[in-house]
Amino acid sequence: MSSKTRFIQALAQDTLPRAFRVGATHSGVKKNGALDLGILHSTTARCTSAASFTQNVFKAAPVVWSSEVLQKGNGTAKALIVNSGCANAVTGQQGLKDAQTMSAGVDEMLKEKDSTLVMSTGVIGQLLPIKKITDSIAPLFNATKEDGESWMSLAKAFMTTDTFPKLRAKTLSLPSGRNVRVAGIDKGAGMIHPHMGPPSSIPRLPHGTLLGVIATDAPVASADLQSVLDHAVDRSFNSISVDGDMSTNDTILAFANGAEGGSQLTGEDLASFKSQLTDFAIELAQLVVRDGEGATKFVTVNVENAPSYAVAQVVARTVATSSLVKTALYGQDANWGRILCAVGYAPLDKPSPINPSKVTVKFRPTDGSPDIALLTNGEPEQVDEARAAEVLKLEDLDIRIDLGQGTEKAQYWTCDLSHEYVTINGDYRS
Amino acid sequence: MSSKTRFIQALAQDTLPRAFRVGATHSGVKKNGALDLGILHSTTARCTSAASFTQNVFKAAPVVWSSEVLQKGNGTAKALIVNSGCANAVTGQQGLKDAQTMSAGVDEMLKEKDSTLVMSTGVIGQLLPIKKITDSIAPLFNATKEDGESWMSLAKAFMTTDTFPKLRAKTLSLPSGRNVRVAGIDKGAGMIHPHMGPPSSIPRLPHGTLLGVIATDAPVASADLQSVLDHAVDRSFNSISVDGDMSTNDTILAFANGAEGGSQLTGEDLASFKSQLTDFAIELAQLVVRDGEGATKFVTVNVENAPSYAVAQVVARTVATSSLVKTALYGQDANWGRILCAVGYAPLDKPSPINPSKVTVKFRPTDGSPDIALLTNGEPEQVDEARAAEVLKLEDLDIRIDLGQGTEKAQYWTCDLSHEYVTINGDYRS
Repeated sequence: MSSKTRFIQALAQDTLPRAFRVGATHSGVKKNGALDLGILHSTTARCTSAASFTQNVFKAAPVVWSSEVLQKGNGTAKALIVNSGCANAVTGQQGLKDAQTMSAGVDEMLKEKDSTLVMSTGVIGQLLPIKKITDSIAPLFNATKEDGESWMSLAKAFMTTDTFPKLRAKTLSLPSGRNVRVAGIDKGAGMIHPHMGPPSSIPRLPHGTLLGVIATDAPVASADLQSVLDHAVDRSFNSISVDGDMSTNDTILAFANGAEGGSQLTGEDLASFKSQLTDFAIELAQLVVRDGEGATKFVTVNVENAPSYAVAQVVARTVATSSLVKTALYGQDANWGRILCAVGYAPLDKPSPINPSKVTVKFRPTDGSPDIALLTNGEPEQVDEARAAEVLKLEDLDIRIDLGQGTEKAQYWTCDLSHEYVTINGDYRS
Repeated sequence: MSSKTRFIQALAQDTLPRAFRVGATHSGVKKNGALDLGILHSTTARCTSAASFTQNVFKAAPVVWSSEVLQKGNGTAKALIVNSGCANAVTGQQGLKDAQTMSAGVDEMLKEKDSTLVMSTGVIGQLLPIKKITDSIAPLFNATKEDGESWMSLAKAFMTTDTFPKLRAKTLSLPSGRNVRVAGIDKGAGMIHPHMGPPSSIPRLPHGTLLGVIATDAPVASADLQSVLDHAVDRSFNSISVDGDMSTNDTILAFANGAEGGSQLTGEDLASFKSQLTDFAIELAQLVVRDGEGATKFVTVNVENAPSYAVAQVVARTVATSSLVKTALYGQDANWGRILCAVGYAPLDKPSPINPSKVTVKFRPTDGSPDIALLTNGEPEQVDEARAAEVLKLEDLDIRIDLGQGTEKAQYWTCDLSHEYVTINGDYRS
């Protein structure tokens, strides 16, 4: 993945959600002069909001504060302030005060109360240079605009070790014939293995900073927006992993300002919105894996014919997070034994729902050529090593694991584990 | 850890357990001419045995077969045959037949039935060159000896990516005044995160090939030997991690042949034997971490003042297996925020027994200088970065995590995650 900038997409102006003003500036949190502070706000009178936060016990100050703002406002926050360079995590009482100060600064510009959510990303355990931030709020707020260039600047203000800004926008056509627009930004390259949202029934290796914001001009009731976001996050951001570490700051926010102008989404329109927003979230989540620290491969792990979605998801995740699988893929080594081994230690209930003699594993070449069978019903295949080596040279890899007992399936996206990952993370702060 | 050969210890002849004959040869499993086949057997008429096997669903053929032998013989196996270079894992029916053939080959030399356990380590998913092995059994068996040199050869036959043979021997003094001798061999450098033995009440990230054998001339009843081994494995081999992958082959075996000559151990002698054998197992387990693939640091994670041993163990393990913590230690970066972050995502019951405002984290310098406080009761300390950088240059690191609520504690041993790890695992088969 040498030229990751090819994942930057030009935006068609008419796909941007209406009545959101955005912008970014360099406030001084980052030492290198890069954009490090951004604001997004809806110019409509009313806006609904929803959030999915990290389940880490050590919740960063912006997570604690945003959670409070959302509750107080009952899901009607209309603005976001975000900084990169410092995560404001494990910063004690002063950190919480700083998050509150950031939030209040934008509230003041909006002339509203409890309306601004906060996100921070960067180094853990250091205090924000809060004066630099507060001095920047008014000029930044006054310079926010609705155009694509401003959205791109905002996306850049989210970046830490990211090598490209992650921004997508799309028009969603609903069954009734209405069109709504959605834009999304996310960031993340390491410490990615989110576990967000309400306690799920799926047992997890809870472990990633991933920040994201999705803004739509669809009119969506705040409870519906939360339910749509939970569904989407589980199948997108909670189904990716770069390194198996769950951050103190992971947060995905959604804003729906209704500027499309119609009545609140219900019935088929709402169901379609939920499904399309999930696909949009998957696209955003995949960008994070594309930019995985040091990643040279984009790997999709498909688990099929499982007894339940939960079993499928746990098996997919266990394979996707195995260091030995990830280093083998980096080395373009068809060491499928490591894949099997990971399937075998997936943390499932006892007795295990997996029957080794029913498990089939294949590589599905992303160049469209026929599948390469590795194991069929528990028995190893004679693998054409030359062909396997060719397929493993491809940037995009697809591992198919058929459990042979059930009809449920799950997908998980991950990257390989490279020398560059170690370089990036062995020397992050300097 | 440039000169890992310094972990090789010379053996005093009189510490070797009596009446065990051992030896190794190059049979041809490995292509490079190195020792790849070993045999250990007791020359006493009776011998007890115990085992702790991997919990991976895909159990390798030697694990399946050894388990059966132990059951049939009711814990009276007296011999071991081990090969390196090929794990005989995920090899279907032929694999199982091959494991059985190896076992039967030694049984024939012993003129016994169901008396030989089998271990294999190496690449997964390839069949053993079984003819080469069977051809080697009789000459190897006939060449086995009781001396230290033969023990060292046997230890070498266990090696795969190991950079040094792992062998220890010790005389244990029991309260009654009796002396018994114990020798142990283990191997492992990658795919190390064992979870063996009977289902434990401790929730685990079940994930490592680790092989080990402990032989003693103490007379121990087979049920007692199993109970001693379970206790020891939980606090030693199950408390180490190199890369978080649990192998299909992990096995620790114990043989007690009673050649010391006294009556079976009971009471205080048995309790003391259990405690001393646990310490011996910890020493063996630590050698694996010392030889962790690419490791440059030996890290002890101590969790103290926890509400239970289980909570302490899970927290220690979660910190010890975090890729971000391990890369930071490799980079000699006092990024303690990553330690905190990992404590925060330890997979514990909800509501979490961890109270962030009671957590204290320190580095305890292994040069004997005063502790470096990183976080006290949830509030970050002003860290002397220059001092921290000095301490992080030491090869041995000690992380102390005080949960501040309870009296239980646990230890976990791990290594850093380096460029070399990726190199070794990205290109293992070639």
